[in-house]
Amino acid sequence: MNGARHLLSVDALSDAEVERITRPGFSPRVGRASRRGTLACLFQQPSLRTMSSFAFAGARLGLTPVPITTTGDALRDQCDLHDEVRQLSLVSTCVAVRSASPLDPSRLVRLAAPVVNAGDGSNEHPTQALVDVAAMRGVGLEGRTVLLMGNLRDHRVHHSLAKLLARQDVRLVLVSPPGLELPARFLPERARQVEASDAETV
Amino acid sequence: MNGARHLLSVDALSDAEVERITRPGFSPRVGRASRRGTLACLFQQPSLRTMSSFAFAGARLGLTPVPITTTGDALRDQCDLHDEVRQLSLVSTCVAVRSASPLDPSRLVRLAAPVVNAGDGSNEHPTQALVDVAAMRGVGLEGRTVLLMGNLRDHRVHHSLAKLLARQDVRLVLVSPPGLELPARFLPERARQVEASDAETV
Amino acid sequence: MNGARHLLSVDALSDAEVERITRPGFSPRVGRASRRGTLACLFQQPSLRTMSSFAFAGARLGLTPVPITTTGDALRDQCDLHDEVRQLSLVSTCVAVRSASPLDPSRLVRLAAPVVNAGDGSNEHPTQALVDVAAMRGVGLEGRTVLLMGNLRDHRVHHSLAKLLARQDVRLVLVSPPGLELPARFLPERARQVEASDAETV
Repeated sequence: MNGARHLLSVDALSDAEVERITRPGFSPRVGRASRRGTLACLFQQPSLRTMSSFAFAGARLGLTPVPITTTGDALRDQCDLHDEVRQLSLVSTCVAVRSASPLDPSRLVRLAAPVVNAGDGSNEHPTQALVDVAAMRGVGLEGRTVLLMGNLRDHRVHHSLAKLLARQDVRLVLVSPPGLELPARFLPERARQVEASDAETV
Repeated sequence: MNGARHLLSVDALSDAEVERITRPGFSPRVGRASRRGTLACLFQQPSLRTMSSFAFAGARLGLTPVPITTTGDALRDQCDLHDEVRQLSLVSTCVAVRSASPLDPSRLVRLAAPVVNAGDGSNEHPTQALVDVAAMRGVGLEGRTVLLMGNLRDHRVHHSLAKLLARQDVRLVLVSPPGLELPARFLPERARQVEASDAETV
Repeated sequence: MNGARHLLSVDALSDAEVERITRPGFSPRVGRASRRGTLACLFQQPSLRTMSSFAFAGARLGLTPVPITTTGDALRDQCDLHDEVRQLSLVSTCVAVRSASPLDPSRLVRLAAPVVNAGDGSNEHPTQALVDVAAMRGVGLEGRTVLLMGNLRDHRVHHSLAKLLARQDVRLVLVSPPGLELPARFLPERARQVEASDAETV
């Protein structure tokens, strides 16, 4: 068995899947299988809005949300975040994780339940980026110019957004102060990166 | 569209509705529509007992409770309580709110989901007052004298109770220390207000 | 009416029940009665893993988990833990309790809902012990020697385990430093108690 399919990065989704999920009016199909299932929400960092959004989404799919928060950065009584996710995967239908540092895909192989990344350190935040692209589609995205501005080095939503937008028919412009540019591994080939001091000339 | 009907004050309920809700053995009708819905419980002030009571009530109606608590008075990452309620109304079947200051009805118009006031500052606490009237009905309320005693100026349950009891066939007596009388806007015409020092002559 | 049956100690379970519950592959039968019910989880001491395990178990049985945590040892606004459990039993299908001190069975009589002990002070922790016995059965328990080691005086899981294992076909050896022996009331007649300094001769 290869285990469940995770959503740790937007890279896990095909173009067709991204297009379907972010289409206006998208509504997931809810099967009977989800009845009496649970959605474990393990949040190493507190976030009321993201936590509750996952809870609402889970309930809409028929999954009972089980919030698992930690006080401080340490997971009390718990040796290791990845071990904890593995354990939760044994009793949950799905596990949503917000972690203080990047998740390691090699430590989440062959799990019975899918893991959804709800923001891992300064790496990625795929679900937030999907919501953002869906909102952009609502006002029209095809053929437009999209400008991402700010701390592109550390802001994880921008990382997922840059990857997702590079797969759309848009012109992507990245603006950031010197030293806070988007790391190369998130940088789509088609994007043009501009320093904040030159942004007015874009 | 005029939006959902809220329960911000006991004034929102007709006499017939109050009578029905507080009748011994009252049991709400549960429709199929509530399946897979959610009850957002946004509590700016912590209250385990009220929070859990709303959660039990929601579950009984088929709504998955989603607790949303705040640390301290500030809503972290959230600009404004009323904006937050508006946003929650987009994804919830119902929103229960406990707020540190009075809710502003003018800022909660045209919402898709009903808002239930679970205590707003020193203003009202309609659901607690309904529970109290229901308990009084259980031991007999008609024709009785009901005495509300204590800090009637700030205690929000007393505000909702005074309004509700004034609509029942009871004699209402209010006793409080000087300076802590029931504010005029909550004072039913039929009530008699007495200073605590004169209470023994009531 | 005698009230619901509680699980405060492993003594509450018959040998046949223990055998059935800890059998590999045990799966509880879920009736229709549990639909729209609730599982109150009152935790006087925080425990993310135990709390979430009860929540998962409740959801699997069709009960909506309602977490009720306290800040610090004190139950805010609440006069007494046993009174609080009694009140929760009026609105819940089941009440799971973790308490800082031993629960008093005489104060939990004639409740409408069953109470499950999720660890009470340094007394018992019956559900954890059942999980442990189930795990031991998975690798084979009959005819084996089981050694419980450590602070057997205060560790509540060991108390429930000693009682449970004494009812199995095993040789039970208890090893602990001087002064931390298993209290006599948990000590099965068949067990042999050894001081840690003599443990190597066991």
